Amino acid sequence: MKKNSGSQRISLAHGGGGKLMHRLIKELFQEKFANEILNELSDSAVVEFLPKNNSSLCFTTDSYVVNPLFFPGGDIGKLAICGTINDLAVVGAKPRYISCALIIEEGLEYEVLKRITESMAKIARDEDVKIVTGDTKVVEKGNLDKLFINTAGLGLRKKINLSKETIIPGDKIIVNGSIGEHGLAILAARGEFNFQAKISSDCAPLTNLIQRIINLRRSAALCGIKFMRDPTRGGLAATLNEIAGGMNFGILINEKDIPVKKEVRAACELLGFDPLYIANEGKVVVIVSGKDAEVVLKAMRQDPLGKESRIIGEVTKAPGGKVIMKTKIRGSRIIDMLVGDQLPRIC
Amino acid sequence: MKKNSGSQRISLAHGGGGKLMHRLIKELFQEKFANEILNELSDSAVVEFLPKNNSSLCFTTDSYVVNPLFFPGGDIGKLAICGTINDLAVVGAKPRYISCALIIEEGLEYEVLKRITESMAKIARDEDVKIVTGDTKVVEKGNLDKLFINTAGLGLRKKINLSKETIIPGDKIIVNGSIGEHGLAILAARGEFNFQAKISSDCAPLTNLIQRIINLRRSAALCGIKFMRDPTRGGLAATLNEIAGGMNFGILINEKDIPVKKEVRAACELLGFDPLYIANEGKVVVIVSGKDAEVVLKAMRQDPLGKESRIIGEVTKAPGGKVIMKTKIRGSRIIDMLVGDQLPRIC
Repeated sequence: MKKNSGSQRISLAHGGGGKLMHRLIKELFQEKFANEILNELSDSAVVEFLPKNNSSLCFTTDSYVVNPLFFPGGDIGKLAICGTINDLAVVGAKPRYISCALIIEEGLEYEVLKRITESMAKIARDEDVKIVTGDTKVVEKGNLDKLFINTAGLGLRKKINLSKETIIPGDKIIVNGSIGEHGLAILAARGEFNFQAKISSDCAPLTNLIQRIINLRRSAALCGIKFMRDPTRGGLAATLNEIAGGMNFGILINEKDIPVKKEVRAACELLGFDPLYIANEGKVVVIVSGKDAEVVLKAMRQDPLGKESRIIGEVTKAPGGKVIMKTKIRGSRIIDMLVGDQLPRIC
Repeated sequence: MKKNSGSQRISLAHGGGGKLMHRLIKELFQEKFANEILNELSDSAVVEFLPKNNSSLCFTTDSYVVNPLFFPGGDIGKLAICGTINDLAVVGAKPRYISCALIIEEGLEYEVLKRITESMAKIARDEDVKIVTGDTKVVEKGNLDKLFINTAGLGLRKKINLSKETIIPGDKIIVNGSIGEHGLAILAARGEFNFQAKISSDCAPLTNLIQRIINLRRSAALCGIKFMRDPTRGGLAATLNEIAGGMNFGILINEKDIPVKKEVRAACELLGFDPLYIANEGKVVVIVSGKDAEVVLKAMRQDPLGKESRIIGEVTKAPGGKVIMKTKIRGSRIIDMLVGDQLPRIC
């Protein structure tokens, strides 16, 4: 590793298809992501997994452009692996294979890339997913801010009907813990607002939590879980609107039941943000039938990432397509999606 | 479409998870890429395809950062779809599903994005692949040069042993046409060298050409095809070195047999480049057994993208791991990978 260590920086040649690129792939990516499929260095990874007749293949992609690259609770690498894992997990799939495509600004410290690669490798190992294929591009200094990562993911799910179409009035809405931490942790790490807070990102992989309630569904012949989605960009407000949008049911949430940590509440008050619109990276919204809500809630609370799970509201007959919040002062207001953007580059 | 047309530009809010992002997805991506899987707008696409017992799933990813976005013979969108199709095709797979993740600089003209999206949609339609999942991020002006695209791809391949391990001395090396056009077309389009040439990128999807020789293999019980790779970044020189590298055989190519168009040769002489190192985006290197080489060559020449196919050299016993070129003046020289980078951002 000598030749690439220390104060080395990434140069355009590391993306040029020549010797330096091959050395980077060998010394960093193959070393850290070590697995037999990646080691083939084939143009495409050949993943020998055969969905059985009662299962489906799930496929997702996300790019990560978060600024800064490191923040309390994570970094762009952890975020990229968790984010793609979670996009698979919320459709009921078990994540299996992930691709890793890096776009690097010329001049990035090799050490930074190494730390981020190690972070990706750790989460992948912990979650038993393999990084099997990748790509490295380097662009001239000033043409990209440090590093962007794209991860695409593959997972398998057993036959299960998770669909907005199954949602009916009376269904309950559960969230697995307090909201708004990821977005504010990024903001604090940027130092833009002269605002320092002890808020860590909630960035975490949700497979175990979600598989727990999916399996519960099978073993107990429950058919309670209707739909799941992770409230990332646009926050809980966007996700609830995506669920209700265009449907003939509404969603009613109770402000008093939505878990928000006091540091988050304080920071939001200071900055004029609403925690409902702030991104999360380790949260899931679960829509579950009224009769099964307590059983699912109990199961979620047994998971380390679900201890603070709460029923935050329910599906209503009217007003169709809308999300309404009953406020603490017993008023109510429409929770719409934002038109503009609250916080760019939080993921 | 009125609200997004005309002189509209992409704003940070188009990546913010709110209304503008949802409108962009609906009006542009769902409209152009139209298919029932994408329309679900699920966190992960559920692709109901089941590899049979004798087939494998292939998975690949590539990011595209080409500058400029439009060039003779293509654009970043066409390049992204063709590139991912070709990475699947060269391992013997039929491309089926593609993801599309865009990272956009704030201020990009909506019209530019629309043209690129249409270009992606056209190739996907022509090649019968579906764009089933995607992601859109927008970063602040100055933090990225216009637009980067990542495409990951999935394909199925029937059981087939394409591996460097099967290559032996006496095998022939075929290329499906003239080299160096893509890299030089990009360079000319940039206008950096005050050099204008009538060179178009060779950017094209290779599935049909490659399936033609794979099927030949099956029908005629040929086992001639040993390995394939598309000579993109680093050019033919990098690809041949990737094939020979670390193996106990060498590769001998004949300069006189390597197809190079006269415009490419002239531009290379003017600029001091070697066409062997210049990227291609519609070429494939095929290693085939000596006895089957002529049959495969003939089949390749029947394809519109293979008319100019040539046997350019062969696999030799020694020197192991090296690529040697017999020059036109009857000398010979080692063709190594480049250490540095010849041309950044050509793909």
